[in-house]
Amino acid sequence: MTDSFLKKLEARARAVNSLLCVGLDAHLEFLPEPTGKAAYDFCVRLIDQTHNLACAFKPNSAFFEALGSAGFEALRDVIAYIHRLDPALPVILDAKRSDIASTAEAYARAAFEYLGADALTLNPYLGHDAIEPFVGKPERGAFVLCHTSNPGVADFQDVPIGKQHQALYEYVAGQVMTWNRADNIGLVVGAPDDQALRRVRAVAPEACCRAWAPRAVS
Amino acid sequence: MTDSFLKKLEARARAVNSLLCVGLDAHLEFLPEPTGKAAYDFCVRLIDQTHNLACAFKPNSAFFEALGSAGFEALRDVIAYIHRLDPALPVILDAKRSDIASTAEAYARAAFEYLGADALTLNPYLGHDAIEPFVGKPERGAFVLCHTSNPGVADFQDVPIGKQHQALYEYVAGQVMTWNRADNIGLVVGAPDDQALRRVRAVAPEACCRAWAPRAVS
Repeated sequence: MTDSFLKKLEARARAVNSLLCVGLDAHLEFLPEPTGKAAYDFCVRLIDQTHNLACAFKPNSAFFEALGSAGFEALRDVIAYIHRLDPALPVILDAKRSDIASTAEAYARAAFEYLGADALTLNPYLGHDAIEPFVGKPERGAFVLCHTSNPGVADFQDVPIGKQHQALYEYVAGQVMTWNRADNIGLVVGAPDDQALRRVRAVAPEACCRAWAPRAVS
Repeated sequence: MTDSFLKKLEARARAVNSLLCVGLDAHLEFLPEPTGKAAYDFCVRLIDQTHNLACAFKPNSAFFEALGSAGFEALRDVIAYIHRLDPALPVILDAKRSDIASTAEAYARAAFEYLGADALTLNPYLGHDAIEPFVGKPERGAFVLCHTSNPGVADFQDVPIGKQHQALYEYVAGQVMTWNRADNIGLVVGAPDDQALRRVRAVAPEACCRAWAPRAVS
């Protein structure tokens, strides 16, 4: 039987004694030229220097898409490079996708089959059926946005809902965890806000045993 | 001075006396083979047959991404084909992106500069600074998800918030409209739910003068 995505991630964290998720953000200003090859080379240098310490890699889809079809191909090649280097090293595609039904299935095909990621980040606003097409296979996973670290967090995520004196992001955390039937769904909580992290731990203690807060360190 | 995106859309609607937004959803099962060329040919046939009636075209990024880098290139070529056919015909990229700061800027570069879209769909969960990088130029626009037509709409969008007896999606509608300083932000409201459409009209009457509910008709 194949291990679940979160089991694979936990095994990796124990093996390297590290919770470090290395962001692969190929910002244009970091590249000598705006090409897929330059983005690939930039990422490979980072991977070579950090893979022994990395619990996971997190390539950011946006910076590759900005380079067009050659960038999209470079993203696939970067993920393949990581898998060749160490098949036990999970790759989380930072894509923050949000769509439903057959559209979500097409995004899942892009992320898992074409690009070869193990997991990806998703946005919760559309509800459970926008998450399901990504988490049907236990060995593939998703991290759902819960509380982000930007100023706009106050616009909707921090707004109080219902009569339970909960903020929307706490309600999101609780709901999303009820969808985690295959041990392959985590939450994204911006690490600088330790109060938010504590409150998410209170709502979703099981998820936070595997506390996860993807942060770019590139 | 360049017209705003919503002015361009309104002018098109009046010129063809139509509010029809034609979805370009290159589902794998519609294609003779899973290639970028097949997706391009499928879309061009649809465009040729509908452009005289179309207020806008709405290619769905997911189905192109599922075909890999050749699909991403086909998406760019489809949008270029529409612009060559009729420069007054707006193209709304259905991408439902949601990210912040430099990542959102990279998505904007992908959508507007590489792919050549006039506008795109976005997700509101991350707040105002996840929308701003897309709407700095009046001639480029964004439609922000408000109330969608899937079962998961009940999970978060319909949840009552605060003390105003508003659902989250109504609050989202009101907030998003305060960001519409350049006349280039609209809302996505699933058309089958006319109650939701009425409630959004009440919260955001100005936006709904240009009522807009992207729906695939392919």
